[in-house]
Amino acid sequence: MSKQQLADIDAMLRRFRPTGPRSVAELRTGFKALMDTMTVPENVHTAPVILGDRPALHVTPADAPRRGTILYFHGGGFVFGSPETALSLTAQLVSKTGFEAYSVDYRLAPEHPFPAGLEDNLSAYRALLDQGVSPSSLGFAGDSAGGGYTVTTALAARDADLPLPAAIVAFSPGLDATRTGESMTAKEDADPIFTRDAVMSTGAMYLAGQDPNRPLLSPAVHADLTGFPPLLLQVGANEILLDDSTRLAARARDAGVDVILDVTADAPHVFQAFAGGALDEADHALDRAALFLTQHLRAG
Amino acid sequence: MSKQQLADIDAMLRRFRPTGPRSVAELRTGFKALMDTMTVPENVHTAPVILGDRPALHVTPADAPRRGTILYFHGGGFVFGSPETALSLTAQLVSKTGFEAYSVDYRLAPEHPFPAGLEDNLSAYRALLDQGVSPSSLGFAGDSAGGGYTVTTALAARDADLPLPAAIVAFSPGLDATRTGESMTAKEDADPIFTRDAVMSTGAMYLAGQDPNRPLLSPAVHADLTGFPPLLLQVGANEILLDDSTRLAARARDAGVDVILDVTADAPHVFQAFAGGALDEADHALDRAALFLTQHLRAG
Repeated sequence: MSKQQLADIDAMLRRFRPTGPRSVAELRTGFKALMDTMTVPENVHTAPVILGDRPALHVTPADAPRRGTILYFHGGGFVFGSPETALSLTAQLVSKTGFEAYSVDYRLAPEHPFPAGLEDNLSAYRALLDQGVSPSSLGFAGDSAGGGYTVTTALAARDADLPLPAAIVAFSPGLDATRTGESMTAKEDADPIFTRDAVMSTGAMYLAGQDPNRPLLSPAVHADLTGFPPLLLQVGANEILLDDSTRLAARARDAGVDVILDVTADAPHVFQAFAGGALDEADHALDRAALFLTQHLRAG
Repeated sequence: MSKQQLADIDAMLRRFRPTGPRSVAELRTGFKALMDTMTVPENVHTAPVILGDRPALHVTPADAPRRGTILYFHGGGFVFGSPETALSLTAQLVSKTGFEAYSVDYRLAPEHPFPAGLEDNLSAYRALLDQGVSPSSLGFAGDSAGGGYTVTTALAARDADLPLPAAIVAFSPGLDATRTGESMTAKEDADPIFTRDAVMSTGAMYLAGQDPNRPLLSPAVHADLTGFPPLLLQVGANEILLDDSTRLAARARDAGVDVILDVTADAPHVFQAFAGGALDEADHALDRAALFLTQHLRAG
C-alpha cells in the first residue's frame, strides 16, 4: 500500500507551509519552486501559442495523437501559478489520453481580480471553437482554482450561448468563495497545505470586494448546473476544500448531470501532482481521469 | 448521445413493472424473464461449484486469466435472483478485467430471512480464503441487494476477524432497511422499476420482524466503515435507492475510506445490466468498474 507515501508527502507539505503571511511575490516563487519538483512525462511536446486574448501552452503527445482536445486551467488560488507550474498534471493527462491540451495563462489577482481570469478562459474556449474544434471532442480540466474555472468557464459559456464541452475534470476544485463548507473548519488540522485564513487571503484578492454569492464565484453553493456535461471531481479527504466538491456533486446530481465524486482518503489537495512514482494514488487517479475523458470526448 | 437509449429502456421497464402485488413465485419468474434478455459476453466459461455452504457459479475468462478473484453477489431484493440472473453483470466484469469470479447462490427470503444469506456469503468468502486466495487479490462486487451484501459481508468478515477484500464494487446497492433516504420518496416518479411499497414488501420478507436499525441491515445509516478497502458505488439518478449510495459514500468519506460515488443521470436501477450494445452508459460504467478493480487487486 502507499500509506507510507501519503505520510511522507503530508510531512513534506507541512514543512513547506509558510509560518506567517507572505507577499504575492513570495507566494508566486514559493509555488513555482514546489511545482518544479513534480515529474513531467517525457513523451509530450510543448509549444507557446496565443489562444484568444492570452498566451497558452500547447501540449501534444510525442506519438500520434488521438483526436480530442483538453482545455486546461492551472491552479494557484487565482493569484499564482501558470501553465508551467501545472505542466506535470497537463502532460500526464496528455500522455495518458493521447489528446492534445491547451493550458491557458489567464490573468491573475490581485492585479486582475474577478472576472478577468474567467474572461480569459472563456476567450480561450471561444478561440478553440472558432478554430473548428468541436465541443463534442473537447473537455475542460483543471486543478484547485483552475478546477473552479472548469465549472465557471462552462457556466460563462452557457451564459454566452456557446455550446458546452463534452466533459469536465476537476482536481480539488475551489468552488465556493463564501467558504461555508463544513470541511473549511473540520479539515483544517488534517490539511497539510491550507488554512482557512490562507485561502481567505488569496480569495479576497480575487474577489476585490465583489459579492461572493455569485454563481460564477461560488458555484458549489449557487450554480444551476442544468445541461452540464459529465463531471468528474477528484479530491483528497485531507483538505479544507473537500466540501466544495461534495456540494457541487450534490448540485450536479439534482440537476440531472452525470457526476463522479472520487475521494481519496488521507490525500492532500491536488495529490495528482505526485504522479510518476511518488504516490500510487496519484497515478491511479489520473488513469481514472484519462478513462473518463476518453469515454466522453468523441473522435467523430 | 444515448438519451434515446435511456428513454427506450425507461419505457420498457415501466411496461414490465407489475400493476399489483405479486406472489414470490411470480416475482422470481418475472425477474428471471427480464434478466434472461441481457447480453452475456461469449468470451467466458461458467461451471457450477460448491463454495462454503452453498452452490456457486465459477465464471472464468476464455483467454488466459489475470490473477485476481471477484466474489459476486447477485441482486433480487433478497427474495429472487440467482447467479444465472446476474450472469450478464458478472461475465462483463470477468471479460473486462480478465479476473475469475465466483457468484454465490445464497439462500433467499422469505424461506430464509436475515441473516441466512449473509451467512452464506461470509461462508463463501471464508472458503476462498481457505483455498489460499489472498484477500489482496480479491474484490467483492454485486448489484442491488447483492450490492448491499458487498458491504455487509465485509462488515461480517471484519466482525469475524477475517481480513477484508482489496476492493468493493456495488451497483445500485440496497443499504438501508430503515428506508429513510430522501430519494425513497423524491425519486418515486422517476424510478421506472421500484416503488417504496414494492421494496418495503420484499424487504419485510428479509427482515422477518427483525430491527432494521442494525448495521448489517442498514449500513448506509449505521455502519462504521473504518478500515474498509476502496469502494466504488455506481448508481442511477432515477432510482429510489439513490440515497442508499450517497449516504454510504458520506459515511465512507468520514471513516477515511477511498470512495467513488459514480452517478449516471437519467439511468435506472442497475443500468449496467444493459451493457453490450443497448446502453452506452452501461458499458462505460462497467469499464470504469473494471479499471477500479484492476487498480486495487494485486497480482502479487
